[in-house]
Amino acid sequence: MVEVISAIEALDVRFPTSLSLDGSDAMNPEPDYSAAYVTIRTSAGEEGYGLAFTVGRGNDVQVAAVRALVPLVLGMPVADAFADLGAFSRRLTGDSQLRWLGPDKGAIHMAAAAIVNAAWDLRARREGKPVWRLLAEMSPDELVDLVDFRYLQEALTRDEALDILRRAEPGRAARQAELLASGYPAYTTTPGWLGYSPEKLATLAAAAVNDGFSQIKLKVGADLHEDVRRLRLAREVVGPGIRIAIDANQAWGVGQAIDWLRPLAQFDPYWIEEPTSPDDVLGHAAIRRAVAPIKVATGEHTHNAVMFKQLLQADAIDILQLDASRVAGVTENIAILLLAAKFGVPVCPHAGGVGLCEMVQHLSMFDFVAVSGTQQDRVIEYVDHLHEHFVDPVRIEAGRYLAPLTPGLGARLHADSVARYRFPDGPAWRETKAVVA
Amino acid sequence: MVEVISAIEALDVRFPTSLSLDGSDAMNPEPDYSAAYVTIRTSAGEEGYGLAFTVGRGNDVQVAAVRALVPLVLGMPVADAFADLGAFSRRLTGDSQLRWLGPDKGAIHMAAAAIVNAAWDLRARREGKPVWRLLAEMSPDELVDLVDFRYLQEALTRDEALDILRRAEPGRAARQAELLASGYPAYTTTPGWLGYSPEKLATLAAAAVNDGFSQIKLKVGADLHEDVRRLRLAREVVGPGIRIAIDANQAWGVGQAIDWLRPLAQFDPYWIEEPTSPDDVLGHAAIRRAVAPIKVATGEHTHNAVMFKQLLQADAIDILQLDASRVAGVTENIAILLLAAKFGVPVCPHAGGVGLCEMVQHLSMFDFVAVSGTQQDRVIEYVDHLHEHFVDPVRIEAGRYLAPLTPGLGARLHADSVARYRFPDGPAWRETKAVVA
Repeated sequence: MVEVISAIEALDVRFPTSLSLDGSDAMNPEPDYSAAYVTIRTSAGEEGYGLAFTVGRGNDVQVAAVRALVPLVLGMPVADAFADLGAFSRRLTGDSQLRWLGPDKGAIHMAAAAIVNAAWDLRARREGKPVWRLLAEMSPDELVDLVDFRYLQEALTRDEALDILRRAEPGRAARQAELLASGYPAYTTTPGWLGYSPEKLATLAAAAVNDGFSQIKLKVGADLHEDVRRLRLAREVVGPGIRIAIDANQAWGVGQAIDWLRPLAQFDPYWIEEPTSPDDVLGHAAIRRAVAPIKVATGEHTHNAVMFKQLLQADAIDILQLDASRVAGVTENIAILLLAAKFGVPVCPHAGGVGLCEMVQHLSMFDFVAVSGTQQDRVIEYVDHLHEHFVDPVRIEAGRYLAPLTPGLGARLHADSVARYRFPDGPAWRETKAVVA
Repeated sequence: MVEVISAIEALDVRFPTSLSLDGSDAMNPEPDYSAAYVTIRTSAGEEGYGLAFTVGRGNDVQVAAVRALVPLVLGMPVADAFADLGAFSRRLTGDSQLRWLGPDKGAIHMAAAAIVNAAWDLRARREGKPVWRLLAEMSPDELVDLVDFRYLQEALTRDEALDILRRAEPGRAARQAELLASGYPAYTTTPGWLGYSPEKLATLAAAAVNDGFSQIKLKVGADLHEDVRRLRLAREVVGPGIRIAIDANQAWGVGQAIDWLRPLAQFDPYWIEEPTSPDDVLGHAAIRRAVAPIKVATGEHTHNAVMFKQLLQADAIDILQLDASRVAGVTENIAILLLAAKFGVPVCPHAGGVGLCEMVQHLSMFDFVAVSGTQQDRVIEYVDHLHEHFVDPVRIEAGRYLAPLTPGLGARLHADSVARYRFPDGPAWRETKAVVA
């Protein structure tokens, strides 16, 4: 009997992070880190796991969006799905009626991410490989076949993508060995949340340096005077050799961003992240021209490869921050990694949230082994939150992600965590006063 | 007792238009035109109506998105909402948790549109005015106060917006009289759906000219050979004096659009609409440079004012096609009209669908009276579908929209229609085989 996708379950799981102001920034004062948590089941009883990350309210809408996509792939033979995960992804993003809710953006696109990621997880489990290794061992042709070039080809042709992958092929084995031996550099956002006191910032920044991180990140953008104080304090604590990235989470207009950054420049911030609307390609380009040598970084809200293409075409960013579940999952992120390689822009993924560290490390590690071939100026964001809920949590040592060895994409939650944090009926929500919906 | 917003209801209403291939195009072969239909109720028993348009599957997600926004404004004093509908709109789009699902895009942004439009409808009903007249009788300062300039001001400052409105002020009365006397030009998409036979196309195109339309629109992009045949036929039927717009509904990549348009140019198409991804500002600019004198038009999927700003900054469009419920309703559309006026680009709104004609005419008429002050090269799309379900349907005469005289925004559906077409339980859906969810 042909094995088919027999069920796709989507659950509303929320963690009451607003109680501790973990994750607070200029636009997100009180997030409750959440996941539309997806399990794909096959008729042979196998499972794959994925999720779309949200910050609380609206996670129910995200779950509804996942459920709306389910009929598009339910009943599909697993072998067909795995034989062409590019087509599988396009089936989820290309439905003529559902795409009206995007197209290729917002809740319906993140829903595709959750299912696409679950399918990659399932395939990797079947092959007994972590996703980074599954990807890094595919041929250049197989990888390029996954990419939808329709809206990308004036920036990146199929042949150019093949060239990039072929150039990286000879060094794959050596870099895989290097990755297994010494991991991939991380930076930490743990010290820098806006809701933290100066004392907590100082203590955590010192601890980060102590733990081996060579880059930390601070949230800015709510109050200029406070930003100057916090950035001065952080620079004093970490010294001149540690990179300090700052992150405005879209708080500013274009001119305002340029003005705000002037008094912060003396503290040598490494990059300014999300200085303005994530949709504003030309605005990012204008800010970048004005604030150099501070680098401009964005991507966690960049909703698809077409937007990343333009950020690259317009010389709008120095750092590309892809996200595991904002775009349509692993498949679309392969296209984004190839675009970044073509334009020579380093990828420093957005992480934190729920399971984003677990998932996104696979993309950076694949990039290192088989695409860009370098870790130069690349770092994966790291936030020390909520990893205890994952069956295969990230492993960090001396400021580096260790390469995951267990099969899959890393998004599988402990069954206990799902039961406890299900919204609104899980015991964690019945017991807490943090219920906000 | 203070009158408050006491309830906001959102219903899933779908019309089985796929049965007749009305609305078929290169990306939407079989739409079921639908609405997340919103009623705002006040504690004094008054009601306002708005909707977000979708094309079938996913309308339930759209309804869920509306419901997720309801707590943000429920219980709010009506006087406070009306005193600052700009703040009311920002409350709906600015929630720190819900905006993660966008931000400012996709289902969550269209949900804001439905509620914002219902609030404008309610206010206009209270003042006994159609929305176009309510807006056209507000002072320049009141109008500018509605605009959120944060992400717009390097393209349009508050002072520039005020100047535009003040320059138009002296002529308001004369243009209002002109509008009431002779309406606003329309063009019709009725002949051009991709699923129609050549005979049906020819008959409907001839009828359109007969009915007084000076512009028609044809869908293209599925098959080049067919497009040449259909465009030749249409040109033969309507003659050289009628404008024929063509619409690819995002079917092409950038280079492909340029190539595809070359053999169509001989038939003198007036504009090419949505030649590529709606997110591709730079792609539209490249296409525009290559295909002139064919004009480039887009906007029905342009998800917010920041994207329109860039389309204008990049000289990417000749025609701006705003939509009543894609961006956050009347409020954000005021900003878009002001941006278009600043850049001197004519606005020719997207309509058709469910209630889009009814709503969007108010925006064009307001623009004529109080913003751009002209109808030159401006036309509102018209499609002769589903108007019978509206309490105040559009009135078309000799190819022109007559100015609506009844209070409100026009989105109120007949109660019978709502009952009959509610999905999935309404009798229209129980009786038909068109159930697709």
